[in-house]
Parts: sequence; C-alpha cells; structure tokens
Amino acid sequence: MFSPLIDELMRSLRCLPGVGPKSAQRMALHLLERDREGANRLANTLHKAIEGVGRCQRCRTLTEQDLCGICNNLRRDSTLLCVVETPVDVLAIEQAGSYQGKYFVLMGHLSPIDGIGPDDIGVDALLALVQSEAVTEVILATNPTVEGEATSYYISERIKPLGVVVSRIAHGVPLGGELEFIDGGTLAHAFSSRRPL
Amino acid sequence: MFSPLIDELMRSLRCLPGVGPKSAQRMALHLLERDREGANRLANTLHKAIEGVGRCQRCRTLTEQDLCGICNNLRRDSTLLCVVETPVDVLAIEQAGSYQGKYFVLMGHLSPIDGIGPDDIGVDALLALVQSEAVTEVILATNPTVEGEATSYYISERIKPLGVVVSRIAHGVPLGGELEFIDGGTLAHAFSSRRPL
Ligand SMILES: [Zn+2]
Ligand SMILES: [Zn+2]
Repeated sequence: MFSPLIDELMRSLRCLPGVGPKSAQRMALHLLERDREGANRLANTLHKAIEGVGRCQRCRTLTEQDLCGICNNLRRDSTLLCVVETPVDVLAIEQAGSYQGKYFVLMGHLSPIDGIGPDDIGVDALLALVQSEAVTEVILATNPTVEGEATSYYISERIKPLGVVVSRIAHGVPLGGELEFIDGGTLAHAFSSRRPL
Repeated sequence: MFSPLIDELMRSLRCLPGVGPKSAQRMALHLLERDREGANRLANTLHKAIEGVGRCQRCRTLTEQDLCGICNNLRRDSTLLCVVETPVDVLAIEQAGSYQGKYFVLMGHLSPIDGIGPDDIGVDALLALVQSEAVTEVILATNPTVEGEATSYYISERIKPLGVVVSRIAHGVPLGGELEFIDGGTLAHAFSSRRPL
C-alpha cells in the first residue's frame, strides 16, 4: 500500500520480536517522518554489532571481546561456576548483587524436539572448564521449566563423575510474595521442597 | 551491564516508538543470538529508506518517487481532494475502498504550542494545488481532535475564498457500534450533529 521502499522497511522491522504489522507500520513512518537520525544510528549500530559481537571464549555469553567483563574480572571467585540459559539471566543475577563467582552461559536449553542437544549448549566446553579451572561447585540456575529442569539434570549427571559439588538454586514462594497470588505449581514445589527448621 | 557494543545496540533500538529498555534488551539479544540475517536486512533497508524516501511533490506523502502511486494514477478523480494528517490516514481511507479522489497529506496538524504553523503543514502548497488543478471539492478528513478540528477550520477559511466547496467528513457513532460502548464525547457530537429524516 505504501511505496515499495517503505513496504520493504515495514517488512524488515518484523524481524524484531513482538513487532506485528501495525507496530512495524508505526515504526517505519515514525522513523521516516520524525527520526531519520535515530534510524541512521540504528542501522550503523546493527551493522557494527553483527560484525563485532561474538561469543566469550570462556563462558559463551555474547561479547565483542575475547573474554567478557566477568570472565576477565580477576576479583571474581573462579571456584564457583553458575550455569544459566541466557545472557539476560546473568544480568538478573548480577543485579541481585550477591553472587561473586563466575558463569557459564548455555545460550539455550536441551530440546530434543527442536534438535538441540548437548553439543549445541556447549556441555563439553563446560566440562572442560570445570576441569581446567579449580571449580569446586557448579550451581545450576537454568529456568524452572520442563526443559530447564531436564537440562540441569543432564548436566549434573555429567559433572558428578568429576567429583565436583553440583547444586541447584532453590525454587519456591518468592520473598514478600503472598501465598494467595502464587501459582499452584510453585506452591506444590514449595511444599515438596520444604526443609526442617 | 552488557559489553559496550551490545549496550549501544540496545540504546539505538530505543529510537523505535513504543520500545522501552526491556523491549530493547530483548530485541538486541534476539537479533544477536538468533537472527543476524534479519538484523542485517533491517540495517540495509533502513539505510536505503533514509537515502531514498522523500515527499511526493504533489500530495506531500512519503514516497521514493517524484509522485506517489495515487497522484500518478490517471484513473483517480482529480476534482476531489481529501486532506488528511498522515500517510496512515490515506491507507485507512484506501482500505475502506469507496473514495476515488486524490489526497493532500499535511504530515501533521497545526500546533502553536509546538511551533507548528501553516507553513509546516504545507497550506500554501495545498492552496496552489486547489487552484492549479480543477478541484471542485476539498474534503477535510483531519482527526476529530482539538488540533485536527482547528486545522480543518483554518484550512476551510483559507480555501473558501477560492470558491471551492469545502466539506468535513461526518463524525458520530460508528456503524455497528453499540451505544453503550461509545465514549461520551462521540455520543454528544452524534446528538448535536443529528440530521432530520
Ligand atoms: Zn565470559
Ligand atoms: Zn502524492
């Protein structure tokens, strides 16, 4: 309905998650009518990021350096290794502020249906890392979903033979959460994982 | 929190309307982890569109051609000229499918507070167009907002001296709309604009 170039821009914007036809239209017209400078900066940054951003050689997270900021930080405790699914999980844990160890980012989880196996989430690299560095405890912090649980179980079975402690972060009622608003699955888990006082 | 290049990409994505920090983060990581091809296509299309897209020389809408598809269409009725605020309004009217005339796109509305005056919405170009083409009726289809009404009023006062019919599209209860769900302003307008049967 618009001119070919504008239609093409609208189609291209659909690669962004959560952007449907209506949003793409609003975005394209906004950029062309009111923010060509922002659009140009976005295009340049996209090119630079595609070109420059790769994986941290140690923890697999996204970074344009050989080693990410956390892997490169000598003050972090290398004996603790926290395994998470994505870079956003690292961010969430860092923002909580209490963890001082290092990370390993799977960049996904096991999903046989989608053909995602141990190789795709770097399990061999994880095992090599646990052995080459003096890791004493691996903390599994994958999501409490079916896939996340299966991934944690698989990894724990692979790591245990190395004689390293493997733990799983606790799941249950969030601090400050009111029981009446917690979903049934979480509540059932909180009961079955209860601990003696 | 992420590496500098990824942080920069997240910031750049904020130029898109409706995209806050959380969405920008999700978008940047999605593109880098899963759709670099789409990101590259988006960057290229942004550059091409910024470079190529300008204004239709006749109706002011966005297009990469000298004249947009509608202005260039010899089968459209040049004696009818519909004045709208934005290219999206043209799209909406075209999708309704009953209007066969041409358009003039203000690319905004009068807004003294924001320093947007008649020059910024092309009123002189509109008057010149009405005179140079054999326009017999100008249909004002600006939005039924305070600014849209003021803009329509101003334009009608400028066009009337040219001896051309000026009309305003009707506003009221939408067809199929149930009265109980219509806002009070629309309903009040529908009453004050009632017509004898
Ligand atoms: Zn790293
Ligand atoms: Zn045109």
